[in-house]
Amino acid sequence: MSIRTLKVGMLGCGNVGSGVAQLLSEHADDLAARVGARLELAAVGVRDLARARAHVDPAILTDDLESLVNREDLDLIIEVMGGVEPARSLLLAAMANGKSVVTANKTLLAEDGIALYDAAEKFGVDLYYEASVAGAIPLLRPVRESMAGDQIERILGIVNGTTNYILTRMDEAGTSFADALKEATDLGYAEADPTADIEGFDAAAKAAILAGLAFHSRVTALDVYREGISHITADDVASAKAMDHVVKLLAIAELTADDRVSVRVHPALLPRNHPLAAVREAYNAVFVEARAAGELMFYGRGAGGIPTASAVLGDLVAVARHRVFGGLGSRESDYAARQIATIGEATTRYHIRLDVADLPGVLAAVAQAFAHNGVSIQTVRQEGHGNEAELVVVTHSAIESALAATVSQLRSMDIVRNVASVIRVEGGNR
Amino acid sequence: MSIRTLKVGMLGCGNVGSGVAQLLSEHADDLAARVGARLELAAVGVRDLARARAHVDPAILTDDLESLVNREDLDLIIEVMGGVEPARSLLLAAMANGKSVVTANKTLLAEDGIALYDAAEKFGVDLYYEASVAGAIPLLRPVRESMAGDQIERILGIVNGTTNYILTRMDEAGTSFADALKEATDLGYAEADPTADIEGFDAAAKAAILAGLAFHSRVTALDVYREGISHITADDVASAKAMDHVVKLLAIAELTADDRVSVRVHPALLPRNHPLAAVREAYNAVFVEARAAGELMFYGRGAGGIPTASAVLGDLVAVARHRVFGGLGSRESDYAARQIATIGEATTRYHIRLDVADLPGVLAAVAQAFAHNGVSIQTVRQEGHGNEAELVVVTHSAIESALAATVSQLRSMDIVRNVASVIRVEGGNR
Repeated sequence: MSIRTLKVGMLGCGNVGSGVAQLLSEHADDLAARVGARLELAAVGVRDLARARAHVDPAILTDDLESLVNREDLDLIIEVMGGVEPARSLLLAAMANGKSVVTANKTLLAEDGIALYDAAEKFGVDLYYEASVAGAIPLLRPVRESMAGDQIERILGIVNGTTNYILTRMDEAGTSFADALKEATDLGYAEADPTADIEGFDAAAKAAILAGLAFHSRVTALDVYREGISHITADDVASAKAMDHVVKLLAIAELTADDRVSVRVHPALLPRNHPLAAVREAYNAVFVEARAAGELMFYGRGAGGIPTASAVLGDLVAVARHRVFGGLGSRESDYAARQIATIGEATTRYHIRLDVADLPGVLAAVAQAFAHNGVSIQTVRQEGHGNEAELVVVTHSAIESALAATVSQLRSMDIVRNVASVIRVEGGNR
Repeated sequence: MSIRTLKVGMLGCGNVGSGVAQLLSEHADDLAARVGARLELAAVGVRDLARARAHVDPAILTDDLESLVNREDLDLIIEVMGGVEPARSLLLAAMANGKSVVTANKTLLAEDGIALYDAAEKFGVDLYYEASVAGAIPLLRPVRESMAGDQIERILGIVNGTTNYILTRMDEAGTSFADALKEATDLGYAEADPTADIEGFDAAAKAAILAGLAFHSRVTALDVYREGISHITADDVASAKAMDHVVKLLAIAELTADDRVSVRVHPALLPRNHPLAAVREAYNAVFVEARAAGELMFYGRGAGGIPTASAVLGDLVAVARHRVFGGLGSRESDYAARQIATIGEATTRYHIRLDVADLPGVLAAVAQAFAHNGVSIQTVRQEGHGNEAELVVVTHSAIESALAATVSQLRSMDIVRNVASVIRVEGGNR
C-alpha cells in the first residue's frame, strides 16, 4: 500500500535535534505505521552550515530560517534551537502558515507561551511541547489529558537533573556544594556557566508551564518565586539527614486555601520515605496530588539528546496523525483565571538552624520569638558546641511572611549568634 | 455563553460508577469548561433497581441495559459493570449506534479486546480504557501516545494492589502469606474469594492489554504465562532480604532477542534499589524501558472507586471533546504482528533454594547439575542446619527450559532433599 509523505522542517540541530534526526531515520517504518504517513526530514535550519551534523543529509541544511518556516512544501515544524528569539518569531510564522509545530523550548513557553497558544488557536494548528518539561518523561499529556476529569491540588517536581545530581552527592557522600558542582561539571551534567541550573531558572520555567496547565490559568516565569541551591551547605544536608530527610530542589505549584496559585522553586527537606526522596543523581520525577486520583508520580530522564528526542517524536506522531486523520489536540485553557499568590502568602513548614549562646533560658527565649509571630514549633533539637550551641527548629505549617518576621526577630536577639539556615520542609500533610 | 449538553449513559453503578457519578456532579463546571459542552449523566443501567445509589438520581436508573445502549439521545457510554458478558454485547451495540465508549473492563479487553477495537474502527467511534490498567495512574495514554516515537523494550509492572500489600507485609513484618492475606482481607484490600488477585489472573489481564499496546500486536489473556504468590513463604522473603532484594508480583511484557513478545505474570526478586522495590502496600507502579527514553516509571493508586473514576473521567473528557471539536483518538494497532514467545523461551535469572545433605562434595555436585544444563551460576550461599544445609543459588540469565531441566535433575539427586523454591530475579541488566 502506498501512503503519503509528510515533510518535516526542523529549527536547530544540536544535541536534541541530532537525536530527533537519528530516531526519524532509525524508526522510519514504525513511525509510518503509527502515523499512517511517512515522515521525511526535509529541511534543517542551523546557524553554522559548516558544522557536520550526524544523521542529517548536508543537502537539507539551511541557515535561512525565515525561508524554512515559509516553505509551502513543509507540513510540520520542530523547534529545538532554544531561547526566546528568533524561536518565537519563527514559530509564530510557521503557525501563521498553517503548520503544526512541536517545540522543546521551555524558556520561550514560560516567557511568552500565551502568544504561542493564541496563535495555535487562531490558525487552527497544533502546538505540542512535551519535551519542554522533564525531558523524556510523559508528563504534560497526562496532566492535560489523563487528569482532565480531576482537580490537581499540588505538584512537587524534581525537574532539574544538574541540581539533583549535586544534592544526591552531598547527601550520599557528604560532599560540599562546591565539590559536588565540580563533579557534575566534570561529568557533563553541569554547563560551564551553571547559573541557570543551580539558581533555579531552568526549574522555574518548567514550574510556570506545569502550573499553567494544572490550574488552567496564565502563569509565566515572572510569577515563579525562585531560590537556588548554591547556599546549601554540607551542615544543612547533615542536619536533614539526622532527622531522616533529604534536601531536594523542588518546583512546586499548588492551590492555596483561597483557590489561588502558589508557584515556586526552592530547596526543601523531604522525608526520606517520600517517593521523590529516592530520585537520585540526574533523574527527574514529578509528584502530583489530585483530589480524586490521589498521589501519582512520573519518573525518568529529564535531559539528554536521545531521551528528549523521544518526547519530541511522540508529539510529532500526534500532530502528524491529526494531519492524516483530522482533528486537533487539546488546547491550553485559562478559563479558571486564578490569581498568583505571593511568596509571602505561601504556607509550608520550616527547618531553621540557629547558633545560640549555651546559656539557661535560651530555648525559652527562642520559643517565645516563634510564638510571638504565630509560628508553631513542631520539634527542637539542641546540640552543644563548647559555650555555643546549635538549635534546630522544625515548625508546623506557617505563612512565609510570619516566618520571615520570626527570623528577623531572631536575628535581633543577643543570644542568637547566627541564623545559619532556613530551609522549607515539604512533602508532608498540611 | 450557552453551550451544548452531551448526554452520558453509564452501565454499572458499583464502587467505580458511584465515583464517576460523584465527580461528574462535583466537577461539573470545570468539566464543561474543559470539554466545551456540559456532561449530563442521563441514564444509569443497573441489575438491582431497589439498591440506593449515592450521587445518582433514582429517576435515571434502569435495569433495561439493552434499551439504554440503543437510546438515541445518549451521546457517550461509560461501562463500569465488569465481566465479559453482557458488557461485550452492550459495548458493541453502543458503538454500532455511533456512541463513543469509555470502559474500565480489563477482563473483557484482555479476553476479546480485538472485537471491540475493530468495532470502534468500523463505526468510527472512540473506545477509551485508561482505567482498565493501574486504576488512577495515567499509563495507557503515555504508552500509546507519548511514546509513539520510541520503541518500548520492556515493561515491568506492579499492577495488583492486593498482592503488593501482602508482599509488603511479608517483607516488612516477616508475616506468613496466610497472615498477610488475612490482614489484606480485614482491611478490604482482598476480596472474600481472593483467587483472581493472588493467583495473578487480574495482573495477567492487565499484562495482556499493556503488551498489545506496547508492541503493536494482538495479545490476549491466554497468551500470558501466569503464576501467583500463594506459594511464596516467609523463608523466600527472608532469603531475598538477605541478598538485599524484595519479592514482588510482576506483570512483565518484553521483546525477546528475536523480536517476539514474552508476556508473563509471576513473583520475582527485585534489587532493593530498583525504583519498583520502593512501591509499598496497595500502590501500583509500572516501569517502562524504552530504546530512546530510557527508564520511566508511573506510580499511583491502582484501585479504589474515586481514583479509578478519575481515569474514567479523563477518558470521558477526551471522547466528549472529539464530539464537540471533531477528530478521534489514537487507534490500537497490530501492524507489528509479533508472535508470542512461550514461557520456556523466556530468559531471566533465578533464585533457587535447595535443602541438601551437609556432606563434602555437595556443592560440586549441585554446580555440576547447573553446568550440565548450560545454566551459569552467579552466586551460591550455603547455610548449615545440623546435618542438613540450605544452598541458595542465584543464576545468570538462562532460558526457562534450561532451568526447568536443571531443577528436574536436582530433584532426582539423592543429596538434594528438597528444591524448596524457584523464584525468578528481575530488574537487573541482561
